[in-house]
Amino acid sequence: MNTKDDAINLHRLLKGKIEIQNRVSIDNIFDDEKGTLGLIYTPGVADVAAEISKNKELTYDFTSKWNNVAIVCDGTRVLGLGNVGPEAASPVMEGKSVLFKILGGINAFPLCIDMKDKEDIIKFVKAIQPVFGAINIEDIESPKVLEIVERLHNELQIPVFHDDQHGTAVITLAALVNALRILHKGISDIRVVIAGAGSAGYGIFRILQEAGCRNIVVTDSIGAIYEDRVSGIDNQYKREIAVKSNPTKLNGSLTDALRGADVFIGVSGKGNILNNEMVRSMHNDPIVFALSNPDPEILPYDALKAGARIVATGRSDFANQVNNAVVFPAILRALLDLRVKNLDEAMLVSVATAIADMVDSNNLKFDYVIPKVNDPRLIRVVSDTLKDAIGKHIEKKKQGR
Amino acid sequence: MNTKDDAINLHRLLKGKIEIQNRVSIDNIFDDEKGTLGLIYTPGVADVAAEISKNKELTYDFTSKWNNVAIVCDGTRVLGLGNVGPEAASPVMEGKSVLFKILGGINAFPLCIDMKDKEDIIKFVKAIQPVFGAINIEDIESPKVLEIVERLHNELQIPVFHDDQHGTAVITLAALVNALRILHKGISDIRVVIAGAGSAGYGIFRILQEAGCRNIVVTDSIGAIYEDRVSGIDNQYKREIAVKSNPTKLNGSLTDALRGADVFIGVSGKGNILNNEMVRSMHNDPIVFALSNPDPEILPYDALKAGARIVATGRSDFANQVNNAVVFPAILRALLDLRVKNLDEAMLVSVATAIADMVDSNNLKFDYVIPKVNDPRLIRVVSDTLKDAIGKHIEKKKQGR
Repeated sequence: MNTKDDAINLHRLLKGKIEIQNRVSIDNIFDDEKGTLGLIYTPGVADVAAEISKNKELTYDFTSKWNNVAIVCDGTRVLGLGNVGPEAASPVMEGKSVLFKILGGINAFPLCIDMKDKEDIIKFVKAIQPVFGAINIEDIESPKVLEIVERLHNELQIPVFHDDQHGTAVITLAALVNALRILHKGISDIRVVIAGAGSAGYGIFRILQEAGCRNIVVTDSIGAIYEDRVSGIDNQYKREIAVKSNPTKLNGSLTDALRGADVFIGVSGKGNILNNEMVRSMHNDPIVFALSNPDPEILPYDALKAGARIVATGRSDFANQVNNAVVFPAILRALLDLRVKNLDEAMLVSVATAIADMVDSNNLKFDYVIPKVNDPRLIRVVSDTLKDAIGKHIEKKKQGR
Repeated sequence: MNTKDDAINLHRLLKGKIEIQNRVSIDNIFDDEKGTLGLIYTPGVADVAAEISKNKELTYDFTSKWNNVAIVCDGTRVLGLGNVGPEAASPVMEGKSVLFKILGGINAFPLCIDMKDKEDIIKFVKAIQPVFGAINIEDIESPKVLEIVERLHNELQIPVFHDDQHGTAVITLAALVNALRILHKGISDIRVVIAGAGSAGYGIFRILQEAGCRNIVVTDSIGAIYEDRVSGIDNQYKREIAVKSNPTKLNGSLTDALRGADVFIGVSGKGNILNNEMVRSMHNDPIVFALSNPDPEILPYDALKAGARIVATGRSDFANQVNNAVVFPAILRALLDLRVKNLDEAMLVSVATAIADMVDSNNLKFDYVIPKVNDPRLIRVVSDTLKDAIGKHIEKKKQGR
């Protein structure tokens, strides 16, 4: 078991989990004969700069842009800690950067910024496009972040990925697909309750809808979101949920919503909001994904005791960790390599399904529904899936559909 | 001799001269027993983040901030190429980053930004303070950049260094100090003509003044700058030059200004503006620093033929290369290690003198007035000098002087 002190001591020892390294060796850089310095720096680099000034696309060939991702975070919603500021977000984003490199071979630089205004952040991200091949938005508070991501999606020349929204949605759907396989339920027949209407809740709602789920109820701090509440909701994303979900206009508390539901997905950010009785009130063979970190909505042991058949959390110390790290390095790797401008919902569903398919039927178990973070097949599978999806997308466009 | 093709081919091969590397090994990161992942990422990193949220200074201990420098460039004045844009600036700044690492052990990340407005750039730099220990401003057009640097100097919590201004000034003064030693001239007795009133010209003017030079004439495209021109000058830095330089109110062209001068320093950005006759018109034992790149104001051979005694350029293929790379890695290393907030003019003079002193009298020659870029003593010398200078600064403050 690792303790708090272990984490702090390791960070104190490392003084930074990432660093910049040169891809040219020191051996001959100052050798007057070989003159590498004159090639990588003045005067030689001036010719390279001049070529790019004639054709900006050449930055992909002559610099590290093709493999650079900016992790942009304002520190307003860091893990379960909340608005702790960009400095505190910094070690988290360096950790993310480590995973980007190990799992995706990507140079991900953490830009934890002291800047809170929506328009300022959009302007900031637009400004850094010359040196990055893609943007990963991270741990910015909702609904501000949803608007930022939507705007960047439309206004950037490079792809933007929002891990809290897109990453969580993909890995949650992948886990759900396999859980439903085990329990022989169809996605179009189930009722899902999502607790939490922030970035993750919104992303999961959207991907489930695209995947064919017809009965989704999302709850916020007030209770079930449904059409009649629309006028009282001040953000467009929650209004979209109100209009497009909850077809039976179910209202009331989370407890009310859960009665008879097949699936609970907790992304509320609040621990221990689900009790045994609530799990017992669900439809047969309940699926419980208690994804809030570090304190899940219910502990796996309790959920299983109350009758849940398949349980997942966001934590590495329990079975079935629904971990974004399965998703973000592979998707960003594919976005960079394929130069995809942006992901749509259908592409995300394809990726989730492909990830689910990686667990073959022999291995599929109640406590093993998604591949491990370090499954070496991930990059290839996600890349091939996206390549196919883009192909279909282009085909559709050609056919004018 | 390296050709244009060599530089372009090397860049095409490298696809980026720098990359991000992890400081934790892949070996045991996914080992459930050792659980490194749980320390560097969730859940362990949450404890580290929580500690920082209580005391922001801990980012210096727990992240790479202590060793991170942002190279900020808007691409408006790249080398001698001018306003070629941030994409074209990118390979140049990656080259700079390589030198920062090799010579200073620093993680310098090139942020070539698509953002031109002065206030926007200031806001941008302020926003990235959480993840950087210092800022290096680079290749932004003058006078905008001088105002940006002055504002950042006052408004940032971390040090800002402007290589085009401060770096060039230090290495130029270092070279001049040794040139004057060889020729037995005193800095307070000479007349210096600086061609160019941009960042470099302004920086050199300021450091020479601080070093005791009493007769400096700066020329711009119109000619010699002097007090009577003040009302016609639209930027405060050139006005400062007009008021504080040129005590004899010399007016006229560069040709006029050079007559009888001891030293020519060219930072005009224009090649071949100095001819043999102009050199011949100078005072005895002329010193000619033709620093514009890639085309110097006069070629060394021509300058020497016309009677110049000591000649320097900015190019590596001639003797006496006045190269910022001697300065910027060592100064930033010292700024980071000593946590100096900002450099003042006196500190820059101390560093220049210390660098000049590194060439001992046995080695000092007409064609060897400054140490090589890769002199291993540089870091120590600059650091010790700044430590002393800060000590004196604090002492002065204590004595209320």
